Amino acid sequence: MQLSPTQLEQYRRDGLLFLPALFSAQEVAALKAEQARLFTRDLASHLRAASGEFLGTTAMDRESALYARLLTDERLLGIAEQLIGPRLYCHQYKIILKEPFGKLTLPWHQDYGPWHHHDGMPEPRAISLSIYLDEVTEFNGPIVFIPGSHRDGLLAYEVLPVPGTTPIPSLPDGTVARLAALHGLVSPKGAPGSVTLFDCCLAHASGPNLSPYPRHLVYLSYNPVTNAIRAPSRPTHFASQDFTPLAARPAGALLGG
Amino acid sequence: MQLSPTQLEQYRRDGLLFLPALFSAQEVAALKAEQARLFTRDLASHLRAASGEFLGTTAMDRESALYARLLTDERLLGIAEQLIGPRLYCHQYKIILKEPFGKLTLPWHQDYGPWHHHDGMPEPRAISLSIYLDEVTEFNGPIVFIPGSHRDGLLAYEVLPVPGTTPIPSLPDGTVARLAALHGLVSPKGAPGSVTLFDCCLAHASGPNLSPYPRHLVYLSYNPVTNAIRAPSRPTHFASQDFTPLAARPAGALLGG
Repeated sequence: MQLSPTQLEQYRRDGLLFLPALFSAQEVAALKAEQARLFTRDLASHLRAASGEFLGTTAMDRESALYARLLTDERLLGIAEQLIGPRLYCHQYKIILKEPFGKLTLPWHQDYGPWHHHDGMPEPRAISLSIYLDEVTEFNGPIVFIPGSHRDGLLAYEVLPVPGTTPIPSLPDGTVARLAALHGLVSPKGAPGSVTLFDCCLAHASGPNLSPYPRHLVYLSYNPVTNAIRAPSRPTHFASQDFTPLAARPAGALLGG
Repeated sequence: MQLSPTQLEQYRRDGLLFLPALFSAQEVAALKAEQARLFTRDLASHLRAASGEFLGTTAMDRESALYARLLTDERLLGIAEQLIGPRLYCHQYKIILKEPFGKLTLPWHQDYGPWHHHDGMPEPRAISLSIYLDEVTEFNGPIVFIPGSHRDGLLAYEVLPVPGTTPIPSLPDGTVARLAALHGLVSPKGAPGSVTLFDCCLAHASGPNLSPYPRHLVYLSYNPVTNAIRAPSRPTHFASQDFTPLAARPAGALLGG
């Protein structure tokens, strides 16, 4: 899949693009069922709070043929190649669960912060796509972005602990206030199967889920092979060390098996 | 001030009514300046987190002539008398501060829960008005309500601790899920000077303030003198024991002082 010139211009300006209904209801249902199956298994790649509650999972391609196919679906990989060039691998692949009434919040950060800090990614050239497995509403902990904040590149950060995952290099309040005054805040919401595409330097945060409805999102981050990480310090399910370039599969293949 | 028949019908149905721009920019500026002045003083009626951070203040009418006048402003008291009858006193009067990047969250609850549990208010006949001292947006911790949830009266609760204030009798997840499935969720947002009017049995909650902008709200709760509290257990700045009926002052008197 390719973005239109208007979408390309919007992405370059905002570092962000919302793509409604990129996946069908049938595809979402299959991804959700497979996700539920993964959480019945005791995997080291799961993310858990101190309470034992699941916060998410990582590296789903190792455990699931369906999620392995999603990683190379041409709707996602095609857009990524259009934006950051060919010969991409997947740096990080995860599902973040915001369960009904879940307390999980993420502080203001750029994804490139941890990738630089923990993994030694040389340049901020990676791109992320989040795939909505549930409807995202104003009530279930949607991500809040500062559009345009990617244009400053990597910002100075402080490293904050986050339950269930590695510490997140986070943005100081003053930095967020300055960027928000310049660019405003946005929070894309939409139906299951929608996708938000965002630059690895785009500042974002999210609050808890106040609603009785889940907010499960798949996050898939592509990085050029030429920008492969140089100083890995985390298990490979947080930061892949398989730098083989991915080859796109047609959209119809996702459920085809 | 009086509600229109349509507004009355909406309030009866939803237990909730949003009134945009009830107070002028000049009035809001005066209320904000006075609030800032109150927080320069070391008062026992302030609400503080364990960290010392201000979360709000109570019983502002004791310390401020302006806030004493607001309590009897006919725009607020007039609507309350129309809805719950004459001879009202103020049960609780507070300002809740959600500061920029503030962590304060409130669990799902009905205001009548604490008033019954802590104060012995006989019947759920009280009404609350929240006056926006700042713009309320989707980003700064707006209140989320379940419209229509007041029609079930007092619901079974569990008592949860909340930093800086008395414990809040809170609604179990299952109750919120059942009510949200029936009625949905709403979150009124709007400019400074707007007012949300809500029934004391309306279920509501709120999340943290992710934004660099404050969300300061005045809450004013009227109760009929005939429904005065019977079993006070808290300091009077949380639950007034002055049951003298209030007399409305014309709107023009707020700044006239």
